[in-house]
Amino acid sequence: MDIGTFRKHGHEFVDWIADYLRDIESFPVLSLAKPGDTRGRLPGVPPEAAEPVDRIFADFKDVVLPGITHWQHPGWHAYFPANNSPASILAEMLTAGLGAQCMVWQTSPAAAELEDLTLDWLRQLLGLPPGFVGTIQDTASTATLCALVSARERASDFGVNEEGFGRPLVVYASREAHSSVEKGAKVAGFGRRNVRFIETDENFALVPAALEEAVARDEAAGLQPACVVATLGTTSSTAVDPLRAVGETAARHGLWLHVDAAYAGTAALCPENRWFLDGVELADSFVFNPHKWMLTNFDCSAYFVKDPGTLIRSFEIHPEYLKTGVDPCVKNYRDWGIQLGRRFRALKLWFVIRSYGAEGLRAMVREHQRLARLFKGWVEAEPDFELLAPVPFGLVCFRWNDGRRAEDELDAFNKSLLERINSSGRFYLTHTALRGKFALRMVVGQRTTEERHVRAAWEAVASAARELGRP
Amino acid sequence: MDIGTFRKHGHEFVDWIADYLRDIESFPVLSLAKPGDTRGRLPGVPPEAAEPVDRIFADFKDVVLPGITHWQHPGWHAYFPANNSPASILAEMLTAGLGAQCMVWQTSPAAAELEDLTLDWLRQLLGLPPGFVGTIQDTASTATLCALVSARERASDFGVNEEGFGRPLVVYASREAHSSVEKGAKVAGFGRRNVRFIETDENFALVPAALEEAVARDEAAGLQPACVVATLGTTSSTAVDPLRAVGETAARHGLWLHVDAAYAGTAALCPENRWFLDGVELADSFVFNPHKWMLTNFDCSAYFVKDPGTLIRSFEIHPEYLKTGVDPCVKNYRDWGIQLGRRFRALKLWFVIRSYGAEGLRAMVREHQRLARLFKGWVEAEPDFELLAPVPFGLVCFRWNDGRRAEDELDAFNKSLLERINSSGRFYLTHTALRGKFALRMVVGQRTTEERHVRAAWEAVASAARELGRP
Repeated sequence: MDIGTFRKHGHEFVDWIADYLRDIESFPVLSLAKPGDTRGRLPGVPPEAAEPVDRIFADFKDVVLPGITHWQHPGWHAYFPANNSPASILAEMLTAGLGAQCMVWQTSPAAAELEDLTLDWLRQLLGLPPGFVGTIQDTASTATLCALVSARERASDFGVNEEGFGRPLVVYASREAHSSVEKGAKVAGFGRRNVRFIETDENFALVPAALEEAVARDEAAGLQPACVVATLGTTSSTAVDPLRAVGETAARHGLWLHVDAAYAGTAALCPENRWFLDGVELADSFVFNPHKWMLTNFDCSAYFVKDPGTLIRSFEIHPEYLKTGVDPCVKNYRDWGIQLGRRFRALKLWFVIRSYGAEGLRAMVREHQRLARLFKGWVEAEPDFELLAPVPFGLVCFRWNDGRRAEDELDAFNKSLLERINSSGRFYLTHTALRGKFALRMVVGQRTTEERHVRAAWEAVASAARELGRP
Repeated sequence: MDIGTFRKHGHEFVDWIADYLRDIESFPVLSLAKPGDTRGRLPGVPPEAAEPVDRIFADFKDVVLPGITHWQHPGWHAYFPANNSPASILAEMLTAGLGAQCMVWQTSPAAAELEDLTLDWLRQLLGLPPGFVGTIQDTASTATLCALVSARERASDFGVNEEGFGRPLVVYASREAHSSVEKGAKVAGFGRRNVRFIETDENFALVPAALEEAVARDEAAGLQPACVVATLGTTSSTAVDPLRAVGETAARHGLWLHVDAAYAGTAALCPENRWFLDGVELADSFVFNPHKWMLTNFDCSAYFVKDPGTLIRSFEIHPEYLKTGVDPCVKNYRDWGIQLGRRFRALKLWFVIRSYGAEGLRAMVREHQRLARLFKGWVEAEPDFELLAPVPFGLVCFRWNDGRRAEDELDAFNKSLLERINSSGRFYLTHTALRGKFALRMVVGQRTTEERHVRAAWEAVASAARELGRP
């Protein structure tokens, strides 16, 4: 493809993206495709000859697009959001055009330094302690794995990297912690039986006394506690573990304290939300995802550590072919995580922060929180609905409950309710289990979601429940 | 930013990218920036108010761009290439615009099915066995880590995931294997002392008898051999391990055979290159990077496994909040690797394969190999230069050697030679150590590199050597 052809289609694609963003409400938020629909319409063998972009783009619109679930739709209330934004899309275009691979400083000095800078901007914007140093990871799963490996190495005096596991090392997290904690503990070789899932209170937050007890029990049994993960904003219900109390136990027993604020970290942009960071100075590592609620295209996970030396010592490699003359005086991020190769992801973060400004980002968070509280109020005001968890951020967990049915009937009813709402194509909510109860999760966090969308979602929920509840 | 503003800047950025691709030779391939140059020119605190795109873009051009090392420059002969292409950039624009997060089938059915399809296209294009099933990983480092974890779980009957390490498990790779093998073995908890770096022959390829011996020795010592990594195209010199012989040892002792063809895999697009895949049917896993030599924007690493069941069983997680109704009949790629969240990376691969066609991709590989052989011929024809390794693909390892100096003098001379070439800004070569000798690595693999560039690079090398060699 020559430059002229690229230019022509580039303009065409920009217009398509702009139209897509403008018209996104006209698409069903949750794809209506059935398994096999996309693949079944495409040839099973690769083309021998080159095809023109027009033909590929036509297939994109006709075959691929109907199989896309539209994460940027204002009716997106599922999981957590993965917001992009016009500023972030523009930056992603430049990143793709440059095609720089930023494994070491020398392979793109500006990428390394912009990462250093924007992560420090983020640290300031969230009110994290001055000593914290950040790097971009792809996802919170990877960041948590990095934390677990760092914890493992500190606990073993860097012995596992060298010798493999000697005695078992133990990891602690609440029952409500994200599945990536268990997954990371498995990948890093701890073993699932060495992960303690600590009980939670009525608000789904870790009970610190139970943590203290579990650590003491393991110590008494000759096991070595290595790491505790505190979750600020759990995936099921955005519960907030008591960070200071967890941190004090960590400090008392020499545990690595990793903070998983993957979703809720963005809320700390607003000073009035920072109550949940109380005790964060006790943390060894902290992760939150600008690619969730902070308008930055997936993937972009911000991982902060108190002591980069431990991180680097856990992950560094020094083959001859990667050595450069400036190594002693620069940050080579290849040694700050799992991957060697790295995309230029700082650019989109820099574009987003500058394009919105701290003010603009805070305004978005506040509006989403206001809308979530509004929805919560409607749930509480309706006798046949029940709120199932506190609403500290943008997630409302609730269910229909007329008070006259058994739990298994309620589960079945609410499952049907969810299916009915999602099949409209206008809204996409997901579910979880809270104390065994089937709960609907309604997240307000999409950039384009306005009060009218949240109101329409509630009306759809209420009317679907009425229809389903009719004898 | 409203849609109109996005549209305006989107068009502006497309033109900038097109101009950049057109004018890329006018930039110094290796950034001339000094540590701190970029960061020092940007404010240390984030902006409170929103800034217009014009101002951010101006800073991008004035401050960021001088700190970019231009991977898409035709004078890129460093490391291995990380090619993008117009088709891939166009697809990346759509991926960014859609902003879909493809962790499970339901969160974007078309992304999951296009991944399934394009990876099978790749399998066919490379001539890999029909049973192999592929998934996209971010990098070969991550893919190799996945292979090591899968090997660990198979060897321990999925016991490490559950119980942690019992007895040590041993990993084998050649001395020339990529650093990601050691790194992955550390992350997965094997420990560096349980990695055996097997000796290599005069061509830097693993010696199969030495592997067989090492495995037998470990078995006799009561250790459990778990995995062997065969490298097809090492990073230092593109050496090719004897895959069939390695595979036979693996089969004999029940080892997981992982094939690292990160760079050279692309060469298998051409049937005449497939000699190096002889024995690949013995492999359990195979990785190569379309983001290196196959015109697909970083990141896009193709990871193939013979038995997806083992991969999934090693990585699956099933929290309630991620369950969907179609789980039994679709591929949920969250369970095929480390990360939960996933970008829509299949789209660029699909664009690249269709836009070039198999023919176009093969033509590129053949031309690069022809140019590398040309360069090799010039090295061999010049008495004061020495070829240091075979040239099976696109890498030429060589040094200046007038036959009259000691090894340490030669190292110093060639180091100066490399610095002199790279400081011109027209070419970027890197180095490695081969049998302790400082070797220059000249890779031909950038999409835009033509014979005139390779010829100019050789002339620059030869004349720099003459100047340096003058008494």
